[in-house]
Amino acid sequence: MNVVSMPRLSSTALPAPYLLFLGDVTEPSFAKTAFGLAEWAPEMCIGECSLGDTGVSVGLPQMTPAEAAQAGARSLLIGVANPGGVIPESWRHTLIEAVKAGLDIVSGLHVRLASVPGLAEAATAHGRQLVDIRVPPANIPVGTGRKRSGQRLLTVGTDCALGKKYTALALHRAFVERGIDASFRATGQTGIMIAGDGIPMDAVVSDFEAGAAELLSPDAAPAHWDVIEGQGSLFNPSYAAVSLGLLHGSQPDVFVVCHDPTRHMIIGVDGFALPPIEEVIDLTIRLGRLTNPSIRCAGVSLNTSRLEEGEANELIASESRRLGLPVADPIRGGAEFERLVDNCLA
Amino acid sequence: MNVVSMPRLSSTALPAPYLLFLGDVTEPSFAKTAFGLAEWAPEMCIGECSLGDTGVSVGLPQMTPAEAAQAGARSLLIGVANPGGVIPESWRHTLIEAVKAGLDIVSGLHVRLASVPGLAEAATAHGRQLVDIRVPPANIPVGTGRKRSGQRLLTVGTDCALGKKYTALALHRAFVERGIDASFRATGQTGIMIAGDGIPMDAVVSDFEAGAAELLSPDAAPAHWDVIEGQGSLFNPSYAAVSLGLLHGSQPDVFVVCHDPTRHMIIGVDGFALPPIEEVIDLTIRLGRLTNPSIRCAGVSLNTSRLEEGEANELIASESRRLGLPVADPIRGGAEFERLVDNCLA
Repeated sequence: MNVVSMPRLSSTALPAPYLLFLGDVTEPSFAKTAFGLAEWAPEMCIGECSLGDTGVSVGLPQMTPAEAAQAGARSLLIGVANPGGVIPESWRHTLIEAVKAGLDIVSGLHVRLASVPGLAEAATAHGRQLVDIRVPPANIPVGTGRKRSGQRLLTVGTDCALGKKYTALALHRAFVERGIDASFRATGQTGIMIAGDGIPMDAVVSDFEAGAAELLSPDAAPAHWDVIEGQGSLFNPSYAAVSLGLLHGSQPDVFVVCHDPTRHMIIGVDGFALPPIEEVIDLTIRLGRLTNPSIRCAGVSLNTSRLEEGEANELIASESRRLGLPVADPIRGGAEFERLVDNCLA
Repeated sequence: MNVVSMPRLSSTALPAPYLLFLGDVTEPSFAKTAFGLAEWAPEMCIGECSLGDTGVSVGLPQMTPAEAAQAGARSLLIGVANPGGVIPESWRHTLIEAVKAGLDIVSGLHVRLASVPGLAEAATAHGRQLVDIRVPPANIPVGTGRKRSGQRLLTVGTDCALGKKYTALALHRAFVERGIDASFRATGQTGIMIAGDGIPMDAVVSDFEAGAAELLSPDAAPAHWDVIEGQGSLFNPSYAAVSLGLLHGSQPDVFVVCHDPTRHMIIGVDGFALPPIEEVIDLTIRLGRLTNPSIRCAGVSLNTSRLEEGEANELIASESRRLGLPVADPIRGGAEFERLVDNCLA
């Protein structure tokens, strides 16, 4: 994915290429961010750096910060989430070494980089930046609702964490492969690291949520597509405000509903059932019409990673018949996914 | 209105009683905050302080900060919004004098009090607080959607700035006059100053918007009513995220729709018509059901301040027939308002 042509949002343009820092985690699932970067933005990743023989690798050459700087890296990017979300003492030496080697530090963790003892002082002394992805740009304007030029697609979900980022990335890649002028618009920390740019929508003050989404996908050429990573769900009692602000500000022409058929309850809360896909379609259209009267659903992205191939294909076919829409799993791809892409662009 | 029994939200409990500072504004509409306090929280207001003979007064005794401190005031509250939203140089001397006299300073302006040259230093030297109402409490949790005990009412609107705060205050007062155990829950700067407590919902990070609303109206006795000040509108393309987070987190049993019949377009944006009241009722029920399946509309609060009395009464009667609901203007009161209160408590 080539992101060089993307317009930059001042405070979140990231210093790529990256040295992916894997810390001392021994469990690959804690290195999701690094794996996502290696898959979706390989040209932005120069090497990886682990603390000792952890057994976790994204398949890039092992480098020290100094070697990475020599090879052209501009930053060390923390590609792992330590259990608990903190920066352990064991990482400190390498982070300071990176700054001394001329690298900026990029982190999507909750804890601020400046809270690591000695790191801010080292960064100042060596003229390096500490970039906390979770800090949104300053001076976001209030939303206006003004219709912007260009085409927009938003992924929405029956819940959080079931494939909205992956679906948007896969659709963006498919658009580009068809020769369409398209930009992936990142709204969460991993997406921002992949795109090198974006706005962490969940960290924006609510009065400016729609305005931030407007800022994220500015006026563009009439045939240009912004493929916008969705956040949360209108049916999640914790995060629906994020989803609605993003929907209104994105003013999508087209949306794709993302769903995990093996999930039955909203995660992180007690007693909330996942909504039927039809209800997500209906409510998204009703609310999205406020800022784009011609909003339509192009289809459904099913996360079938927990199903056998035969079962997955059967479900994809039956859901497509039931809903009268293209249904596909972007990871499995195939003709179903091509039909979903066709219908997005129809 | 007695607010002494309200639970305090740590970082926003305000040091009442107040000396209302009117600055040098000569236009009463810039002193809305002071007038609101004098009307709704007279027992929290000890005096007023103007810079010179401005002709603007809320009817309280003129006092210097030192006199107010002597009389028992705990803070100087900025009751005016200067055109432009800044703190002019001409106020500086009095603010510093107030701190020296032992008063805290309370402000709902966008600009932070600490930006006034010398004020933070004076406050530190005299052990006083500078309270910026627009700063939400720290460590707001993510919403859980858990059903809480007690009864809740939320005012919602066809748009911003048409009577949601006034309606909530009037309903709260009517509940208390009927001997009902009730709390007014403030969500905006003026409401917070009146209540002495609350959360500025528009300043909360969107991921925590529903959680903030949950924090604002905690578990209560089964017969207790929280009367919650609404914010924004689900139909306002700038602020719907605020409204939805507040709706989900408030989990109201009852809501009242606030409307200005002379307003036809959403303010602050171009080209958005005000929604019909029926549509606000229908969408609020649909979205509110997520966290309270028994949500219902108790009626409509019409802001008829721009209509003649005869015209207003006619409209109130015809809207009530058309909607099949109590409709009233809380400022005009009367039997219609009592019916609205009845239906809230039904």
